Amino acid sequence: MHILVTNDDGVQAPGLLALAQAMKSLGKVTVLAPDHNWSGAGHVKTLDRPLRVQETKMADGTPALMSDGAPSDCVALALLGLVENIDLVVSGINPYSNIGHDVTYSGTVTAAMEAVISGVPGLAFSLASQDNSTGELPDYGPTAQVAAQVAKKVLSEGLPEGVLLNINVPYLKEFKGYLITRQGLRVYRDELDERIDPRGRPYYWIGGEAPTGVDEPGTDFGALQAGYVSVTPLQLDLTAREAMDTLKAWSF
Amino acid sequence: MHILVTNDDGVQAPGLLALAQAMKSLGKVTVLAPDHNWSGAGHVKTLDRPLRVQETKMADGTPALMSDGAPSDCVALALLGLVENIDLVVSGINPYSNIGHDVTYSGTVTAAMEAVISGVPGLAFSLASQDNSTGELPDYGPTAQVAAQVAKKVLSEGLPEGVLLNINVPYLKEFKGYLITRQGLRVYRDELDERIDPRGRPYYWIGGEAPTGVDEPGTDFGALQAGYVSVTPLQLDLTAREAMDTLKAWSF
Repeated sequence: MHILVTNDDGVQAPGLLALAQAMKSLGKVTVLAPDHNWSGAGHVKTLDRPLRVQETKMADGTPALMSDGAPSDCVALALLGLVENIDLVVSGINPYSNIGHDVTYSGTVTAAMEAVISGVPGLAFSLASQDNSTGELPDYGPTAQVAAQVAKKVLSEGLPEGVLLNINVPYLKEFKGYLITRQGLRVYRDELDERIDPRGRPYYWIGGEAPTGVDEPGTDFGALQAGYVSVTPLQLDLTAREAMDTLKAWSF
Repeated sequence: MHILVTNDDGVQAPGLLALAQAMKSLGKVTVLAPDHNWSGAGHVKTLDRPLRVQETKMADGTPALMSDGAPSDCVALALLGLVENIDLVVSGINPYSNIGHDVTYSGTVTAAMEAVISGVPGLAFSLASQDNSTGELPDYGPTAQVAAQVAKKVLSEGLPEGVLLNINVPYLKEFKGYLITRQGLRVYRDELDERIDPRGRPYYWIGGEAPTGVDEPGTDFGALQAGYVSVTPLQLDLTAREAMDTLKAWSF
């Protein structure tokens, strides 16, 4: 089995290293990741400029490829032929959770979307460390074990067509198990932070507190809050089927 | 009524001008759009740098605001308080269709997603001109009329919670009417195009032919092919509910 490993935090991120090491027990591993951080960059297809790919090494000496493209570009480049015979794409480990509405913003998740669009199973792994921040690097060990378990299962069972898995792991030394969840509701607490630069001109940060979520059983956020690994199957068909009937009654 | 108009092609794009002019019949219009093209840039939330907003004018002299952020950033800035009391966000008119899997890549569509996340109705308008390219600017007139009709309806009826509308208009002088559709299947024909720069180093274009789609009745692409305006309600809950049962039978 040949596994492509990528992320949105860049090729030198410790979460990528932990994920790549975990995948080595399952088969051949190729790392192709962005050369800088793309957090919050969304689902990108870079068409207006060419992309570079260079050889580098991760902190443990493992050879890796890095690109100036987005996470989804890295996956596209690989699956368009730069890397041959990929059986599985894994993305992460993101140091923060990717739940609720995060999924369309997240470079970690959109990399797995890109895989699925190309017909290869995609898995996104995130560690919900933000509420436990101590300023130290989070311990990616337990999440790496989860990644190996889930990837092994997906390699043997496959995934339904058009489906990716969004996996979030609670920041605990021991968690209670796995829950298959639906995407919950994110609660963003963004605020406009207007400042004045040294030349008297305004600029704007999207500021505010870190997002939280609606703690509801059955959801990604609910599972994390209860101490479980959350496994959410996501699809790329966004059709709001219930709304179709409402709209069909409209006359334009 | 106060309507925010944005796009992903940049503040000087003729499709934006046509959309802004069409909205003037429905209420107060504020334009806040990117200062450059963000096509294919996905759903962005810019958190690692501050954003600038400057006053400018569109080709007809209408005042507009432009930002160095992505389309979704423009919507976020406005709805976080930079522009007050927005009742509706409209995005476009994109010169190419946004159907099938395009919706998570598309700056036009993700701008409307951003509105819905903030609780404001969002509409994305695209003109399916790519198969009729003559090198001339497409005529945005018919699509602008569609935009005014749909926006008027949404302002009076509202949209179901969490739902945006993705509207694609066929490139015809007269179309057959409106169809409420589901998101169809895009067929990407991307190819890796490796070239060598003047210094002997490789670089890669994501090349290939323009995407097409699966022409199926009931879908966005099917409607366009049959000469109808396609109105697809989209939601931000991507949960693959059918896959949940499959996964619940797995043991990790």
